Amino acid sequence: MTTKDKGPSPSRRQFLTGAAAVGAGAMAAGASRAAGPDPLITEVQEWASGMGAGVDATPYGLPIEFEGDVVRRNVEWLTADTISSINFTPIHALDGTITPQGCAFERHHSGAISLRKEDYRLMINGLVDQELVFTYADLERFPRENRVYFCECAANSGMEWAGAQLNGAQFTHGMIHNMEYSGVPLRTLLNEAGVKPEGKWVYVEGADASSNGRSIPLEKALDDVLVAFKANGEALRMEHGYPVRLVVPGWEGNMWVKWLRRIEVTDAAVESREETSKYTDTLADGTSRKWTWEMDAKSVITSPSPQAPITHGPGPLVITGLAWSGRGAITGVDVSVDGGKNWQKARLAAPGQDKALTRFYLDTVWTGEEMFLQSRARDETGYVQPTKNQLREVRGLNSIYHNNGIQTWWVNADGEAENVEIS
Amino acid sequence: MTTKDKGPSPSRRQFLTGAAAVGAGAMAAGASRAAGPDPLITEVQEWASGMGAGVDATPYGLPIEFEGDVVRRNVEWLTADTISSINFTPIHALDGTITPQGCAFERHHSGAISLRKEDYRLMINGLVDQELVFTYADLERFPRENRVYFCECAANSGMEWAGAQLNGAQFTHGMIHNMEYSGVPLRTLLNEAGVKPEGKWVYVEGADASSNGRSIPLEKALDDVLVAFKANGEALRMEHGYPVRLVVPGWEGNMWVKWLRRIEVTDAAVESREETSKYTDTLADGTSRKWTWEMDAKSVITSPSPQAPITHGPGPLVITGLAWSGRGAITGVDVSVDGGKNWQKARLAAPGQDKALTRFYLDTVWTGEEMFLQSRARDETGYVQPTKNQLREVRGLNSIYHNNGIQTWWVNADGEAENVEIS
Repeated sequence: MTTKDKGPSPSRRQFLTGAAAVGAGAMAAGASRAAGPDPLITEVQEWASGMGAGVDATPYGLPIEFEGDVVRRNVEWLTADTISSINFTPIHALDGTITPQGCAFERHHSGAISLRKEDYRLMINGLVDQELVFTYADLERFPRENRVYFCECAANSGMEWAGAQLNGAQFTHGMIHNMEYSGVPLRTLLNEAGVKPEGKWVYVEGADASSNGRSIPLEKALDDVLVAFKANGEALRMEHGYPVRLVVPGWEGNMWVKWLRRIEVTDAAVESREETSKYTDTLADGTSRKWTWEMDAKSVITSPSPQAPITHGPGPLVITGLAWSGRGAITGVDVSVDGGKNWQKARLAAPGQDKALTRFYLDTVWTGEEMFLQSRARDETGYVQPTKNQLREVRGLNSIYHNNGIQTWWVNADGEAENVEIS
Repeated sequence: MTTKDKGPSPSRRQFLTGAAAVGAGAMAAGASRAAGPDPLITEVQEWASGMGAGVDATPYGLPIEFEGDVVRRNVEWLTADTISSINFTPIHALDGTITPQGCAFERHHSGAISLRKEDYRLMINGLVDQELVFTYADLERFPRENRVYFCECAANSGMEWAGAQLNGAQFTHGMIHNMEYSGVPLRTLLNEAGVKPEGKWVYVEGADASSNGRSIPLEKALDDVLVAFKANGEALRMEHGYPVRLVVPGWEGNMWVKWLRRIEVTDAAVESREETSKYTDTLADGTSRKWTWEMDAKSVITSPSPQAPITHGPGPLVITGLAWSGRGAITGVDVSVDGGKNWQKARLAAPGQDKALTRFYLDTVWTGEEMFLQSRARDETGYVQPTKNQLREVRGLNSIYHNNGIQTWWVNADGEAENVEIS
């Protein structure tokens, strides 16, 4: 038998729950083996004998009705109003690395606005040789780049500073998405305007009522920041900043200003509300961490997890999750099934990519006993994802943002998982 | 001024159509410069002073209403019925490489069926040590891979064998999409069953009425073929084979059986309808090309194109398109603006990836005169995309499939584009 499998792998055949195929000696173990034939195999099904939907049925389609679990969810008690709030990507139900834009999280400060391309204007002003205003059509005439990046809200996992709070990876870690962006490098546009030598920062704001102004150091602005107008091949969704948003790779999601309206070159940071009153964390000594731009390396097991329990018995089990780092590429992920006592190297689905989500897998065998599942990310700078208690030792107990501590799921013998904290 | 631009690039500033920003000496050329201020800049707009949509508005969102052009389209006269037919991806309006699943083309032989995961069964039988049946839940217990691949129907551009027929890249080249698939390698499942030494082929069929059976050589089946259940992070769409489809990288789209039901290991090809009556091309000498599995290297300029005319005047112009090869990675794309007399190397947005779509750009300056736009793909085997006439010399005039000839768009001085054939 010629196969291309490399190395031994335990036969999973005996664990299959499908009815045994008809045939001599076709007996096998397995919990759900019916004594008789499986009608789904032996009888012609309605879908195999009738006509289905035609090619004119859905000019733009939605997921099939059976996937109703795979939606954005919001937590009502989190905020006073849904227009200054956040919802969560259903990461427990996804695989791969691309986040479908239809269920990719949203974070707004004054709701998602409807802004036509014809009405769109982008101003560059301040310490520039020539102040400029671009229409949407103007932006399409500049050289473009395509890059896949994760966008994570700094408040992702924020509730968990207080201990295990929300029961599900969607809620503990779902303020994140990963998309392929097409757009113009910000440096290209800044070079058109000509940055004056005194210019050290840019202040960026959006066209929504909140404007969400943030200061970005010029060095970053001239590095990999994109003025993006496509995500996953098509126009940005309304809720993701249509028609143009800023993409600030690896940095706090709040800086990825939506409905981008103005970029002002300044000689100092503006110290806007979003970088003083918000997006800062107070330490035990009373000082505050500020301008914590880079999202630290982080990971989470998406399955098994509270919303994705194990539905089979002991035997082969796929543990999977996501890892990412705002400082570059993920170089490895370790997984533990015993709450961090012992670690195994997970398999990365592909080599880590700069500031993008990395999918990892651990193909293991479940004994059927309880587990305390954890994952730990490592990035190219040598940074290793810390435990939550290690974080608290450094940050104290007053943090809101940047909780990148190791997540624990307690899985019981029935395969159900619960958010717990043990380290 | 410290910038990271590498090399000279002509200032595009003078071509901007946005109103000049207020400021000393802020005068610039440009067709649309109004004498007075632009109210979109000087007046507070409604979207900047009101609240937008909340985070509970769309648990699963759709594109904004202004993007109504970016939809699948079908051509009614092409087929007798919409259930045995095809529609086309709006590639003229997309960028990047990921195709949004909502507007990714569909091809059905008896319509798209609705099949629940609970009702899903995959049988492996034939020349195997142990015939097996997998439920959907069983498949999730095997080691997975994530891979980005294009899927192209062999009939893509087929109408164009007869000359320039349809006016738009969506119609001439839109039987194609590119997605990130998560699934189990077919070889993993075949190894569970144990392929007998006499086994040389696999016959694959789907659960829809047409079943769409195809024979695949065992070597390919054991190579990179995937049994896939996620595309772009979420479950396959109903119209793309939910819950499980076959992914046959680089090979004819017809082989990517949807609603995958059975895989039979055989010692010879089955010679099904889909590989004899269909998906074969008759040559001038009366013999037929058969089992033309690999999709040849191909490219098309998606913009400018008939559905995506140039809407600005002379000056900076972004020419963009897609290139792909079923034999591996695209290594380069050349673009011509004069119908193939002179060629320039286009810029690849990223290095070509194995059997996936590659995005290319040519950042050029339009003189305002007519152009005959062409692109030519080159892949890692050394293969160079031929002209349509070169193809006809080899294939004759009776082909239906595998038209990978160079596409020409004739662009007039008004920026409008038309499908023409000149080589």
